Amino acid sequence: MRLPESFYTSVRSRLDAALDERGLDGFLATSPADVAFLSGFFYIATERPVYLWMPRAGDPLLVIPRLDEEYAAQQGVTVPTVSYFEYPGVVSAEETLAAALSRPGGPGRRIGVSAGLSVGAYRALSRAIAGTELETTDAVAKLRLCKFPEEIPFHEAAARICDEMLAAGRALIEEALASGGPLPREDEIARHVIGYGTDQMYANYDLVVYTTKLAGGLVYAGPNSALPHGLPTRRRIQPGDTLILSLGAAVASRFVESERTFVVGEPTAEQVRYYEADRQAQEVGTQAMLAGRTCTEVNKICLDVLREHGLGDYIRHRQGHGIGIQGHEPPWVEDGDDTVLAPGMLLSSEPGVYVPGHAGYRISDTVLVQESGPRRLTGYPRDLESNVIQGVR
Amino acid sequence: MRLPESFYTSVRSRLDAALDERGLDGFLATSPADVAFLSGFFYIATERPVYLWMPRAGDPLLVIPRLDEEYAAQQGVTVPTVSYFEYPGVVSAEETLAAALSRPGGPGRRIGVSAGLSVGAYRALSRAIAGTELETTDAVAKLRLCKFPEEIPFHEAAARICDEMLAAGRALIEEALASGGPLPREDEIARHVIGYGTDQMYANYDLVVYTTKLAGGLVYAGPNSALPHGLPTRRRIQPGDTLILSLGAAVASRFVESERTFVVGEPTAEQVRYYEADRQAQEVGTQAMLAGRTCTEVNKICLDVLREHGLGDYIRHRQGHGIGIQGHEPPWVEDGDDTVLAPGMLLSSEPGVYVPGHAGYRISDTVLVQESGPRRLTGYPRDLESNVIQGVR
Repeated sequence: MRLPESFYTSVRSRLDAALDERGLDGFLATSPADVAFLSGFFYIATERPVYLWMPRAGDPLLVIPRLDEEYAAQQGVTVPTVSYFEYPGVVSAEETLAAALSRPGGPGRRIGVSAGLSVGAYRALSRAIAGTELETTDAVAKLRLCKFPEEIPFHEAAARICDEMLAAGRALIEEALASGGPLPREDEIARHVIGYGTDQMYANYDLVVYTTKLAGGLVYAGPNSALPHGLPTRRRIQPGDTLILSLGAAVASRFVESERTFVVGEPTAEQVRYYEADRQAQEVGTQAMLAGRTCTEVNKICLDVLREHGLGDYIRHRQGHGIGIQGHEPPWVEDGDDTVLAPGMLLSSEPGVYVPGHAGYRISDTVLVQESGPRRLTGYPRDLESNVIQGVR
Repeated sequence: MRLPESFYTSVRSRLDAALDERGLDGFLATSPADVAFLSGFFYIATERPVYLWMPRAGDPLLVIPRLDEEYAAQQGVTVPTVSYFEYPGVVSAEETLAAALSRPGGPGRRIGVSAGLSVGAYRALSRAIAGTELETTDAVAKLRLCKFPEEIPFHEAAARICDEMLAAGRALIEEALASGGPLPREDEIARHVIGYGTDQMYANYDLVVYTTKLAGGLVYAGPNSALPHGLPTRRRIQPGDTLILSLGAAVASRFVESERTFVVGEPTAEQVRYYEADRQAQEVGTQAMLAGRTCTEVNKICLDVLREHGLGDYIRHRQGHGIGIQGHEPPWVEDGDDTVLAPGMLLSSEPGVYVPGHAGYRISDTVLVQESGPRRLTGYPRDLESNVIQGVR
C-alpha cells in the first residue's frame, strides 16, 4: 500500500522550505522511518544501510542493497535508485552514494542528517563524501511532528483494527468462561490478538508494508500487569484479575495504540479505586490536549489527577508520546518537553497506575490534536462497567 | 531465563583485558544487545536510553528508566541499578548517569563506546560527563565474535525449535493437501510457524526474554520468493510452487536461523537445476567454514559454486553473517570482510539463487566454527527429495 503521490509532493515542498530556512543543500535520510516517510520505500532494516538523498534542488536518489532492488520496484517507489552489492561490501553503501553524487553540481557543501545516525555511519559518510559537512538537523523530525491530511485515513484504519484487537482479546476470555474451559494464558491472548490484527491487515491490503511491525501488543494480568514493560508470561488469567491489553497496529506504518484495562469478574473496592483514578486522569489529560498548550502542561494536568488521588507513588511513566510512522516519536508528553501542541499532532494519552504485587491500570487512546479540540481515533469503551468481563463462575 | 553467573564472570574478565589493551577506563554499553550480553538485563527498546557502565575497576552500574525497575529485579539482574524517571526527562538519563559516576575516583578519562551509538546520544553523554573523552571501540564487538561455552546450549535449543518450525510449516501444507482443502496463504504459514516457535519458547522457559523477538520468519512462494527481503503476502500456495521458509528463533536472545526451500509437487527440470546448484553451494560453503580462513575466502568458495553453474546473475547477497545475541552481527561472510574465522564463531551459511519472475532458492544453516571443523546446529534435511511436498492432486 502506498500513500497518494500528493502526499510525497507536499512533503517535498515542505522539506525544501525547511532546508532553505536552515541553509542546507539537502537532507540525507538514514533511518527506515525517515526513508519511508520521504519516499514510500519500506524495507526490513538490517546492517545494510539505506540512504535517501533529498537535495534542495534536483532529483532525489535512493541507495539500497542489491537484494532489495526488485522489492523497491514492486512497491512503486518513484525515486531514482542505485544499489550496492552487500554489507560491508568491497564498494560500500557510502562509496556508492558518494559516486552517485559526484555528478556536475555535486551534493553541495552542507548536508543535513538526523541526530539518530550512528557515530560509525556518520564517519563513514564523512569520509566517503569529500568536501561536504554533515550537520545534524531537526528538519525532517519537525516535518513529522504534525501529520499530513493524507496520513490520517491510514491512522484511522489502524485505529479500527486496534479497537477490534481489544474486542478479540476480551472475546477469547469470555468464550473460555462461557464454555467452562481453562482461561487463556497471557501469551495465548497476546498471540491471538496480534494474529487477529495481522489477519485484518492482510485481508484489507494488497501489499502489506511496515517499518517495524503490523500489529503488536503486551498482555499482562494480576501482579504481572504492575510491570509496564514486562513481556507476556505463561500465567493463566484468573477470576478477580486486573488485565491490561496494550495493543498497537499500523497501516502503511501509520501507527496507533489502543490500550484498556479489564477486570475479570466483579471488581473489588481497591480495583474500582485504581481504575477510576486512572480513567479520570486519562479523560482529563486527553481533554487537555489543546493546541497552544505545552507537552509539560498537558502531562502535569494529567498526572496531577493521579497525585490528587494519592497515587503519586504508583506513577511509573509520563502521560504519552507522539505517534506516526513510528510507534513512539516526538513530541513527548512529559515534563521535560516544552513542545507546543499544534493541530495535526497525534499523541498517545496513557497515564498508568502500577501497584507492585497487586496490578497495573492503564488506558491509552491515540489522540489527534485539532483546531476544534482533541479527537480520539480509538474508541473502545473506557468506563469500568463496560470493561468488567462477566461470566466468572 | 538467565545465563549462569560463570558466563558474566568470564565476560567481565575478558572485557577488563580488552580495556587494558586499549588503555580505556571503562566501557559504556548503550545498545540492547550489548547491555543484555554484559549484564543479562533484557528490555523493550524505546527512546528511553539504557546505559550500562562497566569500569576497568570497581562496580558496574546500570541506568534504566523508572518503568523498568521492577522488571530488572524480576530478571535477577545483579548489577547495581539507578533509574531516571522518563524521557526526555527533567533530569535526563545522561545526567542521571553522570551524577552516579561523580563519586570519588570518577569514571576516568577515557570511556569506550560502540560506534553504533547515535550522534545525538554521543553528544548528550559528552556534555553530561564532564572531563572525559568518549572513544568508539570494538572491545565488546570483538568479545562477541566468538561465543562463550555457556551460550552454546541456548543456541542449540533455539536450533531445535527452528528446525521444528520448518516441520510445522511443511505439515500445514501437507495437511491441506491431504484434506483436499484450500492450500494456505503465505501470511497464514508465517503466522502458523512463528506461533509454533513462540509457543515452544513459552512451553519450555519460565521467564521469556529477548532483545528483538522470540521467533520470526519470512515465507514466500513462486515469484514472490525471488525477492529475498519481501514480506509474506496473501498469495496462496499453488501446486508446482517453489517455497522458501526463512525462519529464526532465539532462546535467551541467542539466535539461530534455519531456512529451507521446498517444491510443492514433482519438481521441474528448472527447479531441480536451481535447487541443486544452491544446495551444492551451501554444502561446499559450509564445509569451507574453517578456522584460519578469512570471511572473504569462504564467501568466494561458496558463491563460486553458483557462478560455475552459470547462475552469477541470480546472486543477490553474500553467503552469510555472524549470529549471536543479535540475529545479524559481525563477522560478515562477504568479500568486504577479512575477519579470520576462529573457533566459537557462529555463522549463517545461506547462499541464494533468485530468478526474477520464477522463484528463489535459499538454504541456510547456523554453523559453529570449531577446531575440528564446522558444525551445523540446525539439521533439517537439505536434499531435494526430502523437501518435495507430496500429495499434489
